[in-house]
Amino acid sequence: MAVNKLSIGSVNKMTYEDFIARFGNVVEHCSLCAAAVWRERPFRDAENLASCFGDFIDRLPINGKEGILRLHPDLAGRLAQVGQLTSESTQEQASAGLTTMTEDERQRMNNLNRRYKDKFGFPFVICARENKKDAILRGLQERLENSAQTEAVTGANEVKKICRLRILNIVCPDSQVTHSPL
Amino acid sequence: MAVNKLSIGSVNKMTYEDFIARFGNVVEHCSLCAAAVWRERPFRDAENLASCFGDFIDRLPINGKEGILRLHPDLAGRLAQVGQLTSESTQEQASAGLTTMTEDERQRMNNLNRRYKDKFGFPFVICARENKKDAILRGLQERLENSAQTEAVTGANEVKKICRLRILNIVCPDSQVTHSPL
Repeated sequence: MAVNKLSIGSVNKMTYEDFIARFGNVVEHCSLCAAAVWRERPFRDAENLASCFGDFIDRLPINGKEGILRLHPDLAGRLAQVGQLTSESTQEQASAGLTTMTEDERQRMNNLNRRYKDKFGFPFVICARENKKDAILRGLQERLENSAQTEAVTGANEVKKICRLRILNIVCPDSQVTHSPL
Repeated sequence: MAVNKLSIGSVNKMTYEDFIARFGNVVEHCSLCAAAVWRERPFRDAENLASCFGDFIDRLPINGKEGILRLHPDLAGRLAQVGQLTSESTQEQASAGLTTMTEDERQRMNNLNRRYKDKFGFPFVICARENKKDAILRGLQERLENSAQTEAVTGANEVKKICRLRILNIVCPDSQVTHSPL
């Protein structure tokens, strides 16, 4: 992926429309995040851009955090099986080994996902690129014991990790704005 | 439109997917609002549902309010001219007479829109169903004098009016939950 990465300078020069086209899905199906973060230009570097997204998510009220989670697909769920995930989610779920589960593992995952969603009213979200399927199954089991409030915050923190890795896929991490930008 | 309106009881019984399909665009291009508001079920009536959306918008930080405005199309702008507005926006802009402007009026509108966007970094949003084109042109001219902070809040309040009218187009306003719902 590295060859096509953008410098932070070129990100800072983007039109709003280009910015939304590139960053509108770094938080899955939630272009409001990119539309809000646009205000914070110029960004110092990729990490600063990721922090702006993180700050926006942190400042959402609890129903907003839950809303962000609800816009996410189930892990290894129906959308994955019919090939209708976003390209970002497809890559992430594959990297965690979720596309090569045994029938037994898939059933266990689906059962846990269902119990999680029934309990909390939003899907289980975890940064798949930082976890393999065994860790994800274990995480699901453990997080089922938490309160809804705890899980909204835990899930939102996972969204922030996913968002950061998606940004680092787009923006060259060692490019910096070194002097007065724009 | 009245014949197909939903009762609030049937709204309260909707699955999340159905809820998003019906209410995902009552705030233009911003399904996070509906995904967040879903947590507040059961709703007492259409006005209560609209209030839940309004409260969510009110609680957004200023960059979130601006983000919501940025997800809106320009009034009588390029998208309208190429027929790519959402169906809701098409109806609303037509009801304000924006589809039957003279060339002179259209140019004036476009000039004011451009100045507004250059100054504030987000498009001018006004509840078109509560205003006709002359009032809109006057509003644009006047609101250009405000500060960005004032305009983010004024614009967000217009979004709330648009949202409420879109909800009253979907939900029968005199249906109520009269006893223990769900």
